[in-house]
Amino acid sequence: MSLTPFKTALRVTWADTDAAQVVHYANYFRFLERAEEDFYRHLGFSFIDITKRGFWFPRVEAFCQYKKPARFNDLIEVELTVEELREKSVKYGFRMLNKDTGVLLAEGYVVIVMADKQTQKAVPIPKEIVEKLKPFSK
Amino acid sequence: MSLTPFKTALRVTWADTDAAQVVHYANYFRFLERAEEDFYRHLGFSFIDITKRGFWFPRVEAFCQYKKPARFNDLIEVELTVEELREKSVKYGFRMLNKDTGVLLAEGYVVIVMADKQTQKAVPIPKEIVEKLKPFSK
Amino acid sequence: MSLTPFKTALRVTWADTDAAQVVHYANYFRFLERAEEDFYRHLGFSFIDITKRGFWFPRVEAFCQYKKPARFNDLIEVELTVEELREKSVKYGFRMLNKDTGVLLAEGYVVIVMADKQTQKAVPIPKEIVEKLKPFSK
Amino acid sequence: MSLTPFKTALRVTWADTDAAQVVHYANYFRFLERAEEDFYRHLGFSFIDITKRGFWFPRVEAFCQYKKPARFNDLIEVELTVEELREKSVKYGFRMLNKDTGVLLAEGYVVIVMADKQTQKAVPIPKEIVEKLKPFSK
Repeated sequence: MSLTPFKTALRVTWADTDAAQVVHYANYFRFLERAEEDFYRHLGFSFIDITKRGFWFPRVEAFCQYKKPARFNDLIEVELTVEELREKSVKYGFRMLNKDTGVLLAEGYVVIVMADKQTQKAVPIPKEIVEKLKPFSK
Repeated sequence: MSLTPFKTALRVTWADTDAAQVVHYANYFRFLERAEEDFYRHLGFSFIDITKRGFWFPRVEAFCQYKKPARFNDLIEVELTVEELREKSVKYGFRMLNKDTGVLLAEGYVVIVMADKQTQKAVPIPKEIVEKLKPFSK
Repeated sequence: MSLTPFKTALRVTWADTDAAQVVHYANYFRFLERAEEDFYRHLGFSFIDITKRGFWFPRVEAFCQYKKPARFNDLIEVELTVEELREKSVKYGFRMLNKDTGVLLAEGYVVIVMADKQTQKAVPIPKEIVEKLKPFSK
Repeated sequence: MSLTPFKTALRVTWADTDAAQVVHYANYFRFLERAEEDFYRHLGFSFIDITKRGFWFPRVEAFCQYKKPARFNDLIEVELTVEELREKSVKYGFRMLNKDTGVLLAEGYVVIVMADKQTQKAVPIPKEIVEKLKPFSK
């Protein structure tokens, strides 16, 4: 079963571009993270709430395939799906599209782990967060 | 046969870090690109020379596994290897280590394509560049 | 006479922060530029339109006073005013406030010049742009 | 009396540039901070040492005049001078030059304050740091 992904949009700024006059390849990972932040805000929490409980969400793997260059002023839609929801980690798949033309710009994934700030060890994702992520997972 | 990788070092700056007090995950891709730039400088050319000939080197795939966080002021050694040298593309493997402790921080790869700036199509990598990359490829 | 400034809002992302757990000081200038981009979009043009006519808007001076730190997830309101509208340059004053609390975070200005891309010399700002900026200038 | 400034050099990377094919204006402030970090390293301490003592060095004012654009691959020399050394703050003046051509690219200053991390109030700069900065101040 394929669920509707979480969708959010962002505008490419001048500072996102490089001398090739396209979005710098590392900035797609910033866009991805912004989508993740919007997703958590939509679900009713933030990285800060996680931090306050003594946890954080380090990234352990990130992958991107670049399909077409995004340019200054483009409106980009980021689609986020919970591809794998494990006890201690989440794998988000993403697609980025030009919102006006529908052209696919990039796709990939990121794997994040719930970690204890003190011990730096992976820990189970708190139950309330799991419950909030479930409706978006396959 | 395994060849000696190209090695270069860089210092983590304050601006590379984020509120988790570690290097922001997208910045490893900036570090990787800096290593690639140093590599080309070592080989005697730069992105600019490529650009002047009407080409550029867009990234088509990027992957990183994060092993241990890098922090402000850390000296990072980036090792670059030419994992695949194809007619129109190059796959660079990389490893990033804390230069003082030898701890592995991250590893992954990037695939870049030689493209024509006008047509945006992939083209064969110029022979002189191929010759310069060969000694570093498997 | 004091005119109503142009106002726009943006959300602080994780990538905007540094290891002091506040927005990195250089990023206020990125926020300022985003506000300027939103302003032009509001007026019906973009940097790209300017570029297509053979011009660009290099910054010649930038100044910021930091009042209170902005943090991850803060919603920031940027107020932009046309402080000086000269033949070849514009001085924008700005204020950034926490949109939820009203606390002043930063204020300052930026001076930009209309320049010819070929000659790199300052040129008069095109009349249509002057007309669009006038209602926002003192 | 004019003292010799602290000098350090850095290479412009692709990620520092924007679609105008020059260094993005906010990145000069990153370069300035890197020079400050190199300066402290030269003096035998780092932001981290300051942090461990419960202090930090927030920026309260930053100013830059942009003279000539810096471009990808340029080698930039940053000159740093201690323009004012006060009880609780330091004003650094800076100049950035193209190291190969000697052309002045940018100049300006930054004012930083020694602050207590807990109270967020300005505090006197520790005596050992004052002693280290004195030889570089007017």
